[in-house]
Amino acid sequence: MDAAEATRQARRLVPVLDAMGLEVTEVAHGRASARIPLAPNVNHFGVVYAGSLFSLAEMLGGVLALASFTVDGCVPLVRRVEIDFRRPARTDVHATATMTDDDIARVEAEARRHGRGDYALAVDVTDSAGEVVASILGHYQLRRL
Amino acid sequence: MDAAEATRQARRLVPVLDAMGLEVTEVAHGRASARIPLAPNVNHFGVVYAGSLFSLAEMLGGVLALASFTVDGCVPLVRRVEIDFRRPARTDVHATATMTDDDIARVEAEARRHGRGDYALAVDVTDSAGEVVASILGHYQLRRL
Repeated sequence: MDAAEATRQARRLVPVLDAMGLEVTEVAHGRASARIPLAPNVNHFGVVYAGSLFSLAEMLGGVLALASFTVDGCVPLVRRVEIDFRRPARTDVHATATMTDDDIARVEAEARRHGRGDYALAVDVTDSAGEVVASILGHYQLRRL
Repeated sequence: MDAAEATRQARRLVPVLDAMGLEVTEVAHGRASARIPLAPNVNHFGVVYAGSLFSLAEMLGGVLALASFTVDGCVPLVRRVEIDFRRPARTDVHATATMTDDDIARVEAEARRHGRGDYALAVDVTDSAGEVVASILGHYQLRRL
């Protein structure tokens, strides 16, 4: 799955992400990046809406799972998210989530053995100058359907 | 400000909330409720998107502030949100946020004295059967501009 295909899938599966103009910019085993443009997400205070920053960071947990896990019949679920808003975002924003090979192997082993494997992702959302505008800690589970 | 006017303001100020079909259903001193319909927020797994549940609960902190605080020149800012996803939401969802008169008075006094007053809101998002689908703890600040 390349970035363009991941973008199409994300927007088709989650219409709200389509409305936000979300674009997956990189997708590889253990690594996923995405961005949202300012225009559809800016509020009338001139900053990117908190819900858009949340969505950008949160969805990476799903993209990363689809790009990294190979356990048949399992899907990624978000269980809890903690998000800190650091400063107003006044530009397009982007974010990257990564997982190590060891972490991927651990989650897959737990999912195969117990039907569920937990993983956490720390993601910074940055503006076009590279400043961190929000930090997210997402708690996910790879779960057998 | 009545609920219809609060709906118009929220949708005008935050276009993403307009795309989500957000509706403020109650607004009073110390109390605000809102709902979002299933249609624009459902993903192709048949459940309400996590980012929409987040947005519904988060925006109540701002509506409640506008309905409750009377400190000139101050605006509500969201600083941190913790959200737990309890179960899939398969219907319209709604949420209510409340603050006591004592809490409102405390925040206003701090904002007048120090230029900022912190407040936290615990909000449950419920489906049409009254089941809690997500719980949010939002940390906000009333801050002098």
